[in-house]
Amino acid sequence: MATLEDIGVSAAINILSAFAFLLAFAFLRIQPINDRVYFPKWYLAGARTGSPGSAGRGVIGKFVNLNFATYFTFLNWMPQALKMSEAEIINHAGLDSAAFLRIYILGLNIFVPVTLLALLILIPVNVSSGTLFFLRKDLVVSDIDKLSISNVRPKSNRFFVHIGLLYAITFWTCCMLYKEYSYVASMRLRFLASQQRRAEQFTVVVRNVPRASGKSTSDSVDHFFQKNHPDTYLCHQAVYNANKFAKLVRKRDRLQNWLDYNQLKYERNPEKRPTRKTGFLGLWGKQVDSIEYYKHQINVLEKRMALERQKILKDSKSILPVAFVSFKSRWGAAVCAQTQQSRNPTLWLTNWAPEPRDIYWRNLAIPFVSLTIRKLIISVSVFALVFFYMIPIAFVQSLANLEGLERVAPFLRPVIELHIIKSFLQGFLPGLALKVFLYILPAILMIMSKIEGFISVSSLERRSAAKYYYFILVNVFLGSIITGTAFQQLDSFLHQSPTEIPRTIGVSIPMKATFFITYIMVDGWAGVAAEILRLKPLVIFHLKNLFLVKTERDRAKAMDPGSVAFAETLPSLQLYFLLGLVYAVVTPVLLPFILVFFAFAFLVYRHQIINVYNQRYESAAAFWPHVHSRIIASLLIAQLLLMGLLGTKKAANSTPLLAILPILTFYFHHYCKHRFEPAFRKYPLEANC
Amino acid sequence: MATLEDIGVSAAINILSAFAFLLAFAFLRIQPINDRVYFPKWYLAGARTGSPGSAGRGVIGKFVNLNFATYFTFLNWMPQALKMSEAEIINHAGLDSAAFLRIYILGLNIFVPVTLLALLILIPVNVSSGTLFFLRKDLVVSDIDKLSISNVRPKSNRFFVHIGLLYAITFWTCCMLYKEYSYVASMRLRFLASQQRRAEQFTVVVRNVPRASGKSTSDSVDHFFQKNHPDTYLCHQAVYNANKFAKLVRKRDRLQNWLDYNQLKYERNPEKRPTRKTGFLGLWGKQVDSIEYYKHQINVLEKRMALERQKILKDSKSILPVAFVSFKSRWGAAVCAQTQQSRNPTLWLTNWAPEPRDIYWRNLAIPFVSLTIRKLIISVSVFALVFFYMIPIAFVQSLANLEGLERVAPFLRPVIELHIIKSFLQGFLPGLALKVFLYILPAILMIMSKIEGFISVSSLERRSAAKYYYFILVNVFLGSIITGTAFQQLDSFLHQSPTEIPRTIGVSIPMKATFFITYIMVDGWAGVAAEILRLKPLVIFHLKNLFLVKTERDRAKAMDPGSVAFAETLPSLQLYFLLGLVYAVVTPVLLPFILVFFAFAFLVYRHQIINVYNQRYESAAAFWPHVHSRIIASLLIAQLLLMGLLGTKKAANSTPLLAILPILTFYFHHYCKHRFEPAFRKYPLEANC
Repeated sequence: MATLEDIGVSAAINILSAFAFLLAFAFLRIQPINDRVYFPKWYLAGARTGSPGSAGRGVIGKFVNLNFATYFTFLNWMPQALKMSEAEIINHAGLDSAAFLRIYILGLNIFVPVTLLALLILIPVNVSSGTLFFLRKDLVVSDIDKLSISNVRPKSNRFFVHIGLLYAITFWTCCMLYKEYSYVASMRLRFLASQQRRAEQFTVVVRNVPRASGKSTSDSVDHFFQKNHPDTYLCHQAVYNANKFAKLVRKRDRLQNWLDYNQLKYERNPEKRPTRKTGFLGLWGKQVDSIEYYKHQINVLEKRMALERQKILKDSKSILPVAFVSFKSRWGAAVCAQTQQSRNPTLWLTNWAPEPRDIYWRNLAIPFVSLTIRKLIISVSVFALVFFYMIPIAFVQSLANLEGLERVAPFLRPVIELHIIKSFLQGFLPGLALKVFLYILPAILMIMSKIEGFISVSSLERRSAAKYYYFILVNVFLGSIITGTAFQQLDSFLHQSPTEIPRTIGVSIPMKATFFITYIMVDGWAGVAAEILRLKPLVIFHLKNLFLVKTERDRAKAMDPGSVAFAETLPSLQLYFLLGLVYAVVTPVLLPFILVFFAFAFLVYRHQIINVYNQRYESAAAFWPHVHSRIIASLLIAQLLLMGLLGTKKAANSTPLLAILPILTFYFHHYCKHRFEPAFRKYPLEANC
Repeated sequence: MATLEDIGVSAAINILSAFAFLLAFAFLRIQPINDRVYFPKWYLAGARTGSPGSAGRGVIGKFVNLNFATYFTFLNWMPQALKMSEAEIINHAGLDSAAFLRIYILGLNIFVPVTLLALLILIPVNVSSGTLFFLRKDLVVSDIDKLSISNVRPKSNRFFVHIGLLYAITFWTCCMLYKEYSYVASMRLRFLASQQRRAEQFTVVVRNVPRASGKSTSDSVDHFFQKNHPDTYLCHQAVYNANKFAKLVRKRDRLQNWLDYNQLKYERNPEKRPTRKTGFLGLWGKQVDSIEYYKHQINVLEKRMALERQKILKDSKSILPVAFVSFKSRWGAAVCAQTQQSRNPTLWLTNWAPEPRDIYWRNLAIPFVSLTIRKLIISVSVFALVFFYMIPIAFVQSLANLEGLERVAPFLRPVIELHIIKSFLQGFLPGLALKVFLYILPAILMIMSKIEGFISVSSLERRSAAKYYYFILVNVFLGSIITGTAFQQLDSFLHQSPTEIPRTIGVSIPMKATFFITYIMVDGWAGVAAEILRLKPLVIFHLKNLFLVKTERDRAKAMDPGSVAFAETLPSLQLYFLLGLVYAVVTPVLLPFILVFFAFAFLVYRHQIINVYNQRYESAAAFWPHVHSRIIASLLIAQLLLMGLLGTKKAANSTPLLAILPILTFYFHHYCKHRFEPAFRKYPLEANC
């Protein structure tokens, strides 16, 4: 177990590395050449076309910042990040981003008073109790433990202070959650109401349109809605399976880009018309005029596209049993989205249409029975993934060891047998499979969510986030507290009584505080600092710039602002809430680290949202109910674990006191769910008149 | 443990007592004097006014059946009960009753093939295995056990026959459930569509109307719906708190009855006008002419009622924040009932209005926050009631013993000390508290449901049925299998691993088969036979007839047909499904007893529904989703318990095979829920155009 000094050293290292990242960021971001990496949002918003003041600075000035004064104000992005008001952020980056920042504010609101309270009350209580001082010296006890609940004598009455504090923390957290839920809900309703008249507000997506014999899908949609919504139905848009057409469009864009490139080349150098060869990749064949060639190719392609278009429109098989139905009023759409249309509840399923950017087209036409089966398969797979993911990895690891490698590829033996390479591989290979797995995990989860059949990208991301949260909860939180693989844990839990489980976990919690403090510093502090540096997009942008960029359009494409990766950031954020709430009464020393994380991450993400990210879609904070319910779940876990921990401390007379708390918390959740969730799921008619 | 002979004796006794009941019924029902007890439904339907052919039979013939031929066909009610077709039953008694009968048909559909299959396959497998024959003779083994799974050697491969059979049974049950759910759902939709145009089909009940300052509730309802449903809104009906008025109405009815009685008396005996005294209960005071007196009293009362009526209509405080809003079309009402009206989802809550008979008026005006708290309190209370109900009863029992009685009432000592009385009391008193509790339990559960705040009688009954089911499941099913109070069970379950619980229960299941066979005969066979006899209504009717009946209206009132007590019959029916499914593979000998119960109860209830019961309300089979999901729950319980049982039989290699089954069953339920439940909860617009 680590002493306070160890923690101090670790903190120093992480703070230094975070500072190094920040310095690198400060240096890189003021170089004009990186402008499109660190301020892409402004290019997209049209506020910038070149880096500020780059004109008239010569060739070098275009790439390197020569204004040395700016180097000394390397932290000035922080006040800049705070300058923009929330309303401006909603205008600039959308409600999703603004609501995402509210999570950090919620974290600060919850944890600032909790930290103060816990440190001021619990540390004196824990330290002065001092059972651990009497223990034998050779039993390794860390300084952190002296400040934690472990230091309190069993059966002590002081545990009532901890219980009282947990009550206070639960109460405060619930207050903040309520306030925030209500704030975000009203923000959402205001946002939806204030939007310009947009097509999706008048539109409902209808799935599982039944195929009537002798009638086209289009006709039956028309007939059905004219009959059932005679006053409000306006028109509908059928959905075609146009994968082939889309391929042609992509090809046309590629050719257009080459044409632009050649025309640009010709403009710069009017003496010589650019030429190319007609063969594979332009490497051999007849020499032709490039501009003429591409113009001709585009012409041919456009004719093919027109043909394909006709074919799709004529072929009744290419019409999917889905339609976007538009209404004359928002009210009509709200009514249609919320009501059941058909006697058979698996047909004519209506939902408010996601905005066009948000639609995941490939899932629109999945029939109802298939959806049920998909859900079954995916939930079994997620369970397997969470608890048994170590099995295939161990298998790959056993393959990937040196003997296995030598057996598979005997010709590599001389190389492998070299001492340096051997030791490197032996240290490196076993971990590699796990690293690769963890790196691709979000992608795997996203694929699983896609198979599950949700029709909007935003719901896909929310489902992936849920799956990732379960994974983190079991494999990071529980996996760090109880050693052994998740599968072993599952097995031991199944053979343990339900009252024993919180005890088994609870008793190890105080011992793992130092581990989690280190985790917060590495994953939280340094991770956030790395986030602002954008190392990967930076490298990719410059690589693309060097090798691929031909036209201005290419440069705009190479500038990839990306979106906030909700599917990954939300679950890891929720882990911090969980850690904070669990350790608040157990080892309050952990709380300041979490506070620093929330404050720092808030600044960084505010900066990123203002300057970098460009959300792919706008779901109007649809993820908030998940944020809320997972913080409630964290509260419940914290309460159960404290119950288990106090059980081992023989403070059994406190159990009834603690048992009330989860019930109350659960009902608070129940109340909030009914009070606010409809704002995120339903569409009040009042707002749509 | 009972031998086959014991069971035979018990069966004989129960069959005899059932026959005695049936004979008594056959005898009593053909007496004209009992006609209103056994055929009240026909009086209410207007098809009968006196008993058939009672005219012209003299005074005795009016009371006693003198046609001796009818005594010899004492079972002829059975074919009569089967004669009416289902469509006629729906017309005659409503859809609730018809759907209730479908539960018995479902039971027969499930258990006839299951019984045949299980008896033909399992009994040979179990008997020929014969481990129990080798056991020592002094270990008491019943004959029943030789036919059960206990007889199979541990680790035997024969267990795969049981598992295969459980698969077959699960598959068959699911098929039947699906068929029946689909049938009942279509029956419901047809029923709702075929109904005459009735007010409640155009009406929505709106609760939690916010109080706007300076506006009456009525005005704000009008304003809100004219704004949000401009095309379809017709009018609304405010709800007044008219408890005082209702009291006056009851009083008026009482006086009117007295007036009728006196007028009748005067008509029969025109010489003497009836008189009464004005004092208390007509015992003293001034002698007055009765007819004049009551006419005057009614007059006075009607003036007071008119005043009270004015007062209520004027006083804004007597208007409750509830309204019945009517629409121009069913479509408008369907839209309003299914959509969220207000931005604040706790205001303007709309639901399809229950039919007027079905409304539970007192719960209409409960505000949203109060509802949440009520739900919390009631769910905690139900949990406490199910698991700790023995505690207060033990307390009462300890009070009600003789020493306690003597201490409280010393003057009783000489009586109590008498030997006969003492032994009677000692045998009787301790059980009395429990008997009283079980008798009033449905009433307690109904009160709990009322506190929970549901607004229709039908939903109150459904909620009571759910609570009663939990009670039966824990205290009858589990309580009989595992000895000890429910509280002790709960305690031991909490300290046991979750995989151990099915084992603990599973291992005792085969041993309790004889107990449950006896239970089925006593509670099922004899209970159903007692149901048809209607002893309590019979006695009450004759008592009322003797002492209270003054006018024809009183006689109609004394004839209390009652309704099927769904809150009690549904849960006990569900217990039979549970027993049948659990014992199908364990002790198949139990199945024929269940079959007999289903067939017999079907006949009896068909007869009762045709001739006796008059449903208070019509919910259009709204209870079916509960029936379905509880049979699914029974399947899951059966599967888990067989898993536990086989675990103790060391047939561990079969566990994975069995573990798949609950998952598949659960997903079948999930599918059915989405496929059919909307027919019971939502209102398809298609059907309401």
